[in-house]
Amino acid sequence: MLSLTILCTGKALPSQRVSSDELDVKLGALPGFCRSKSGIDFRYVAAPGETQSGLAAAALRDAMRRGRCEAASIDLLLSVSGVGEQALPSTASRILEPAGLPAGTPAFDINASCLGFLAALQLAASLLASGTYRRIAIAASDLASRGVDWDNPEASLIFGDGAAAAIVEQGDARTGIDAFRMETHPAGNTLCEVRAGGTRRNPRTGAEPADYLFRMDGRRLFRLTSELMGGFVERLFSGLPYGPGDVDIVIPHQASHLGMEHVRKRLGIRPEDVVDIYRQHGNQVAASIPTALHEAFAQRRIFRGTRVLLIGTAAGLTLGGMVLVI
Amino acid sequence: MLSLTILCTGKALPSQRVSSDELDVKLGALPGFCRSKSGIDFRYVAAPGETQSGLAAAALRDAMRRGRCEAASIDLLLSVSGVGEQALPSTASRILEPAGLPAGTPAFDINASCLGFLAALQLAASLLASGTYRRIAIAASDLASRGVDWDNPEASLIFGDGAAAAIVEQGDARTGIDAFRMETHPAGNTLCEVRAGGTRRNPRTGAEPADYLFRMDGRRLFRLTSELMGGFVERLFSGLPYGPGDVDIVIPHQASHLGMEHVRKRLGIRPEDVVDIYRQHGNQVAASIPTALHEAFAQRRIFRGTRVLLIGTAAGLTLGGMVLVI
Repeated sequence: MLSLTILCTGKALPSQRVSSDELDVKLGALPGFCRSKSGIDFRYVAAPGETQSGLAAAALRDAMRRGRCEAASIDLLLSVSGVGEQALPSTASRILEPAGLPAGTPAFDINASCLGFLAALQLAASLLASGTYRRIAIAASDLASRGVDWDNPEASLIFGDGAAAAIVEQGDARTGIDAFRMETHPAGNTLCEVRAGGTRRNPRTGAEPADYLFRMDGRRLFRLTSELMGGFVERLFSGLPYGPGDVDIVIPHQASHLGMEHVRKRLGIRPEDVVDIYRQHGNQVAASIPTALHEAFAQRRIFRGTRVLLIGTAAGLTLGGMVLVI
Repeated sequence: MLSLTILCTGKALPSQRVSSDELDVKLGALPGFCRSKSGIDFRYVAAPGETQSGLAAAALRDAMRRGRCEAASIDLLLSVSGVGEQALPSTASRILEPAGLPAGTPAFDINASCLGFLAALQLAASLLASGTYRRIAIAASDLASRGVDWDNPEASLIFGDGAAAAIVEQGDARTGIDAFRMETHPAGNTLCEVRAGGTRRNPRTGAEPADYLFRMDGRRLFRLTSELMGGFVERLFSGLPYGPGDVDIVIPHQASHLGMEHVRKRLGIRPEDVVDIYRQHGNQVAASIPTALHEAFAQRRIFRGTRVLLIGTAAGLTLGGMVLVI
C-alpha cells in the first residue's frame, strides 16, 4: 500500500442553480425533455462574474475550515481541471491568492481531464513518500458551462459547474492507495474534445466559434468505453487479494446516469454502495470525483478503514481507477 | 538524494528557421533591430501544418532512437508545455499515437509553464520511487509562434518553437536529485499571460483577439524576479553541503539573453559553465530547459557524476531549481 491520509475535503458551487425544468423553458424544449435526456434535477452554473480559480479557492477554504488546517501548513497546491482558467499561466497559480495560501507556495496544474483528481492523488502520495512535501492540497474545478454547445443536448445538458478540494498527508501506512491504474487509448482522442484554446486552433490559425465548444460523440465513446472497461477493471485489481465486489463503496466519475449505471452493473456493485450525486450536480468534469468523495465524507458514508473504489473515464480516452483505504 | 537516471534525451525543431535579419524585413524594422533587441541569431517556427503533439512525438522518437529504448517499455507519458495543443483533452493523449507508444500507455499533462520539465522530473522520480511506474517519458513542447504579438517586440522576438524529451528510470541511487524547490508568487500572476483559451475569456464570455496573444510586462517581471532570486537560490541550496559555485554546469531556462546573464551573475557562475542555446533557439517556453539539457548531453558537456543545476522562472510567477547528479 502507498501510504496516504486525507485530512479533510471541501466543496464549492457557483451561485446559480438551474433545474432541468428551467432549461426546458430556456431552450424551448418540451416539458420534461431536459430531465429525461440528462437524468438531472438541477445543476449549478457560474454567473458571468464568477471565476474558476475563485470557485477552486472557495472549495479549498472550505476544506481548510473543516479540517482546521492552516493555509501556511500547505506546502504544495495542485490544481486539476478538464479545461483551465486561461492558456497561461497555470490555474493553480491563480488559486493561491484567493485561497489565502502564502506567496511562495509552489503551485502547478495536472491535466488528466475528468480523472485529474485520481492522477493528483497518486502523484501527491508519491511526492509525500519521496519526502518532497509534507502536506499537499488538491483543488479540482471546472466551469463546463463556459463551453457547452446548447444546440447539442447530448453534450450540454449533462454538465454542471463546481469545485472540490482535498488536503492530504503521508500518514502512517495504515491508510492509503492499494491500487492505481490509468490507461490512455488514443482511439478515443477525438470523441470528446474542445479543439480551440491552445496552439491548434486560435484566431491566428483560423478557429471557428464552434471550435471553442465541447464536442462529444457519445455513441462511439460509450462503445469504446464498454469494450475497454472489463479488461481495465481486471488489470486494476490484478495485484490485489480481493476484487471489486469486496470494496465498501464506489465513487464513480459522475459522467452521466447511463454511464454510471453501466459501470455499476459491469462491476457487479449494488446501487446502495455507489455514491451518486449526479442528479443534483450533473457531470462536473474534474470536480466530479472529489465532490462525490466530499459528499460521501459529509454524509458519513466513509469511515476510517473504509475501502473506496474511485473509477471513471476521461477525454483522451483515459480509463482510471484507484482503491483507497481511508 | 532522490534516485533518478536519465536514460536518454531527444529534441525536435519545426521546419522553418527564421533569422533575426529576416524578421527585420518581415516586421519592417531597421536592419539589426530584431537581433539586438532579442539577442537571437535565429529561431525555429512551426509551419501551418505542423502540430505541437507532432513535434513532441518527434522529440520522443529521437530520444528512444538514441537510447535504443522500445516504445513498449515506457509505462507513463508526461507532457509539459506552457500552452497545450487544445483545451481538451490533454496534449499527452495526442502525443501517444504519433510517438508510437502502445494504446493503453497512461498519459497526462503537467502545467508549470516554463518550469514544467523540472516539476515533471521531480514527479517522475517520486512516481518511480513509489513503484507506480518503472520507466517514464517526459515530452516538452511549445509553439509560442501561435500566440506571440508581433506588434510587441519585447514579447515576441525572444521566442522560438520546439520540443525535447527525456526518458527516465529510478536507477541505483548514485544518480538523482540532490535538491528541488519551486515557489509560486502570485504577485507576478498577470505579468506574463495568455488570458483566453480557458474558461475566463472565450467567444461566450467575450474575448478579444488580443486575449489570445501572449502578454508580458517585462520590466515588472524582471524587477520581481530580481527581488526574489537571491533568497530563492539560498533556500534551494539550504539543505546541501555545497553551494551554487560547486555545481559543474548550469542549465538555466533560456528566458532571454538579459535574464540569463542576470541569473549567471547572481549565482556567481563563469560563462563557460552555463549551457546557452538561446542564440540559436530563442526562448522555447517549457521546451527550453530539456532542449538545453539534451544539447549538453549531445555536446558531451555532461557525464556520469556531473552535478547539474537546472534553474529558471516561469509565468505564475514561479521560481524553480533542481540540482541533478547525472
